[in-house]
Amino acid sequence: MDYQGLLYDVRDSARRAPARGRAADYIPALAAADPDAFGMALATVDGQVFGVGDWERPFSIQSVSKLFTLALALAEGGDELWRGVGREPSGNPFNSLVQLESEHGIPRNPFINAGAVVVTDRLLELTGDAAGAVRDFLRAESGNPDVATDAAVAASEADHGHRNAALAHFIAGYGNLRNPVDDVLAHYYAHCAIAAGCRDLALAGLFLARHGTRADGSRLLTRSEAKRINAVLLTCGTYDAAGDFAYRVGLPGKSGVGGGVLAVLPGRGTVCVWSPGLDTAGNSVLGVAALDALTTLTGWSVF
Amino acid sequence: MDYQGLLYDVRDSARRAPARGRAADYIPALAAADPDAFGMALATVDGQVFGVGDWERPFSIQSVSKLFTLALALAEGGDELWRGVGREPSGNPFNSLVQLESEHGIPRNPFINAGAVVVTDRLLELTGDAAGAVRDFLRAESGNPDVATDAAVAASEADHGHRNAALAHFIAGYGNLRNPVDDVLAHYYAHCAIAAGCRDLALAGLFLARHGTRADGSRLLTRSEAKRINAVLLTCGTYDAAGDFAYRVGLPGKSGVGGGVLAVLPGRGTVCVWSPGLDTAGNSVLGVAALDALTTLTGWSVF
Amino acid sequence: MDYQGLLYDVRDSARRAPARGRAADYIPALAAADPDAFGMALATVDGQVFGVGDWERPFSIQSVSKLFTLALALAEGGDELWRGVGREPSGNPFNSLVQLESEHGIPRNPFINAGAVVVTDRLLELTGDAAGAVRDFLRAESGNPDVATDAAVAASEADHGHRNAALAHFIAGYGNLRNPVDDVLAHYYAHCAIAAGCRDLALAGLFLARHGTRADGSRLLTRSEAKRINAVLLTCGTYDAAGDFAYRVGLPGKSGVGGGVLAVLPGRGTVCVWSPGLDTAGNSVLGVAALDALTTLTGWSVF
Amino acid sequence: MDYQGLLYDVRDSARRAPARGRAADYIPALAAADPDAFGMALATVDGQVFGVGDWERPFSIQSVSKLFTLALALAEGGDELWRGVGREPSGNPFNSLVQLESEHGIPRNPFINAGAVVVTDRLLELTGDAAGAVRDFLRAESGNPDVATDAAVAASEADHGHRNAALAHFIAGYGNLRNPVDDVLAHYYAHCAIAAGCRDLALAGLFLARHGTRADGSRLLTRSEAKRINAVLLTCGTYDAAGDFAYRVGLPGKSGVGGGVLAVLPGRGTVCVWSPGLDTAGNSVLGVAALDALTTLTGWSVF
Repeated sequence: MDYQGLLYDVRDSARRAPARGRAADYIPALAAADPDAFGMALATVDGQVFGVGDWERPFSIQSVSKLFTLALALAEGGDELWRGVGREPSGNPFNSLVQLESEHGIPRNPFINAGAVVVTDRLLELTGDAAGAVRDFLRAESGNPDVATDAAVAASEADHGHRNAALAHFIAGYGNLRNPVDDVLAHYYAHCAIAAGCRDLALAGLFLARHGTRADGSRLLTRSEAKRINAVLLTCGTYDAAGDFAYRVGLPGKSGVGGGVLAVLPGRGTVCVWSPGLDTAGNSVLGVAALDALTTLTGWSVF
Repeated sequence: MDYQGLLYDVRDSARRAPARGRAADYIPALAAADPDAFGMALATVDGQVFGVGDWERPFSIQSVSKLFTLALALAEGGDELWRGVGREPSGNPFNSLVQLESEHGIPRNPFINAGAVVVTDRLLELTGDAAGAVRDFLRAESGNPDVATDAAVAASEADHGHRNAALAHFIAGYGNLRNPVDDVLAHYYAHCAIAAGCRDLALAGLFLARHGTRADGSRLLTRSEAKRINAVLLTCGTYDAAGDFAYRVGLPGKSGVGGGVLAVLPGRGTVCVWSPGLDTAGNSVLGVAALDALTTLTGWSVF
Repeated sequence: MDYQGLLYDVRDSARRAPARGRAADYIPALAAADPDAFGMALATVDGQVFGVGDWERPFSIQSVSKLFTLALALAEGGDELWRGVGREPSGNPFNSLVQLESEHGIPRNPFINAGAVVVTDRLLELTGDAAGAVRDFLRAESGNPDVATDAAVAASEADHGHRNAALAHFIAGYGNLRNPVDDVLAHYYAHCAIAAGCRDLALAGLFLARHGTRADGSRLLTRSEAKRINAVLLTCGTYDAAGDFAYRVGLPGKSGVGGGVLAVLPGRGTVCVWSPGLDTAGNSVLGVAALDALTTLTGWSVF
Repeated sequence: MDYQGLLYDVRDSARRAPARGRAADYIPALAAADPDAFGMALATVDGQVFGVGDWERPFSIQSVSKLFTLALALAEGGDELWRGVGREPSGNPFNSLVQLESEHGIPRNPFINAGAVVVTDRLLELTGDAAGAVRDFLRAESGNPDVATDAAVAASEADHGHRNAALAHFIAGYGNLRNPVDDVLAHYYAHCAIAAGCRDLALAGLFLARHGTRADGSRLLTRSEAKRINAVLLTCGTYDAAGDFAYRVGLPGKSGVGGGVLAVLPGRGTVCVWSPGLDTAGNSVLGVAALDALTTLTGWSVF
């Protein structure tokens, strides 16, 4: 298969999208991004990686990090995690407090902010350094030692993070955090503020396409666990647009407000797209358009 | 593959489930069902069908009918359907009015009751006989001319249907029904009250495993449309337990409060299980247990 | 006290209000009303009545009727009523289904539509003719035999009443109606569609200012019951603007989307204002402005 | 009038209440209170004060303090306050985040926790010492220099205050706080943790019965402002049981989870009751029973 040619075609198709959306503007560091920027990488299960556009340029991975916190927390602590966080789609915007209240502090799933705070808390308990664990995993899988938290972005998140502080205190009020609120938030901001490129993320996500096996051949998760993370990605990975993403793209995927989207082709590989312009649900406009084009051109789909 | 032996193993495994749940009790006809009854059929894309237990015994298909109303409405009317109903998971119990209000009469997806009422309305507009269209499709695909609405069940549904009448009037109040409320409800009750067996439903669902092609080789849906219905099934097909079903079973599926669950193995076949005992989300306890066992034994999963 | 001069001053002050609002437009009969029309009547506990503007012109009393259904249902059936309806402010728009769902079919108070449907059901059970009971009471207290249901308005309400039909079916689904849904709705529409003038309503409401005593000296309610109805009026009588109405006007009152507002001056008398232009909460703009002016000019307030 | 004899009768009547409720248990200092303890004071507009039981014993005034923060913030800053907080009943438990989210960070009224946080923020801005302003006002009106914050209670509130921290951060996220979250919370906890007796609070509340005039004859609020605070007390002063309190008691009042309730008899005086056993809405069981008995015995009511 001519993966490189495919990426060129996908890029050309995505660029014809009628709109670009707007970069996230809740912190200055993200607002400065060019909504028209675009990069895309495709990695195969045997470790080959192809790219187009700004595919090596680091961007703020934001919520894409939540895929890795989930995988690492499950790898380290197992199913006990699910006592503190559910795995149902939320049906509400990603930072909603409403469901959290009606469900007594157990967030609906690990990918809404509230759920990711709980997962970060558990990963912090299990490893002593949640953000470091994510960073080290990304470095190891991508082979790129430059993957690191952008301290300025993390600080800016903290400065503008009243909503996340409210979520964390709220969860703590229900007894569902095991570490101090401020520590959990610091690690949460630090792993969201990791800067990495499409190439890095595509490689780091390959364990999900390889049914749990890391780049070095060691096993991170069982085959069943890897499939199950893909299931949670498909039903919950793209905020409250997960249904539409499954309908249009048909692949497990995780998006972030930095404009990145990482999608999994089980048994085949991964794709990571980046473009900072977001739709109203917080997903990259060109990123989703590119994945839509990719699956239309190839017929790839889990269905 | 020894499908028959597989079904025996799955049945034995499911029977070890520690609980049986309770049959739906909102209408007398359903409450009388034995929660311990069990049947299962597996159909392959080439039209073979295997069964175990009460696999040919007719039961009330209830919400499993919604899979067929959706497919027929899309086949007849195309994407215009999506203007009146969404395709996002609801995050609320299947008969909730809350989201309907906040979303101005556009139901979240075609499988919650409110959404199915809209789909029934459109299918009625397109065909003049929504319940008849579903019945005829089931008869044609299964080759079983006995598939028919149980008039007593339909009448009982109507007698106890204040909640559905509320939903329908509510939607009509937003201008999202094209036929009189009473007509839409009559067809809704009639297709939910169809009696069919696991064998019939497994055969009738094969078009989703065959990427849109019917038993006679004609095309009901495009390949892309068939995949997309599978996507909606996976994200929304099992009420507000869709995330857990995707996690545990990993297949597109549709359940009904009559105890049936129809699941799709894309490219491979379909499985239909029936057991009337329900969990709190309204899904068959043994049905989900059997599908869990099936996928554990075989490794089948879309992920 | 020069009540007549006071009414002139109040009218002049209200007319200076910067806006007029819009007449209710959900049924044609109401939409045709002139938002600038204005009438006001003041009745004293000794039976005198004063008026200004269109104070004798009949208008559609709409939800003002709910004050009378409540009083009559309590007079006939006593506190048993409160088992099926609460007396807490709703904090939501007057036709919301959300709270009804979370509170299992027991409406929050007798003045939201859902609560008034329950009260109508009980009054129908107690009298056999709920709308007739309200009409007869209004005729007796006002001495005006022309007070009657406008059949065209009632029919129009029924034609456009999907939302109320939804509410009633929803409540019936929880077992909180004792008569058939269609009967209850017919009486509900019939008492809402009564046409009466400010003069009629001011006289008919005097029993609340006279601590339970009717025009003929007979007792409708105990002193304590009359006070308690005033309390419910103050906390719940003006939809989800009850807090603001209490703050600005400081009197128990009931409004309707026909533009009428009936307020009680305990121990002193009643005031009824009518002007069809409504604010976003469904209360008459000039009506509330006039009551605000009246209490500012006189210092009248329950506080 | 024999006020002293009246208080004895009220106490005897209240003691016959079939239940006592439970003391608030979210912080140890409150949980230790005896649910059977009881005190009551009645102050007349001319400054006389009568008492029964533990009427001089200090207790934690908790949310009763919110009456004073509201009065002082209005006295100092005027109606500008209402841009950041509403005055509608909430229809939800007193610490709910749901409405806060749907209403974009503007709390429904000054007496739910979220609203009181905003009022504290404004009073802090206006005076530089919100808790000190409340303390000093209570001392001046009661003539009791021992009224003071119980530092241990305030510290305990802060230790267990994740829910309030969540509220405050949430409001800050909408830009509706003018001081740092931690400062606002410190003052909030400090004024809630003031210890004062029934005698002190009855005297301190007299300005509302005297239409705005303080003990020394100076004016705190205009006549109209005082009435309006009474209106907000009546519609919102007793959490989500305000409708029932208005129905049963018929007086403006403010309760706290320390077991205190302060009620206003406009033009006549004030009553303060204390008993730590709470009902499910957070109001003192014996306190409300005593006020119910008082108004039944005397016929006092604003209606």
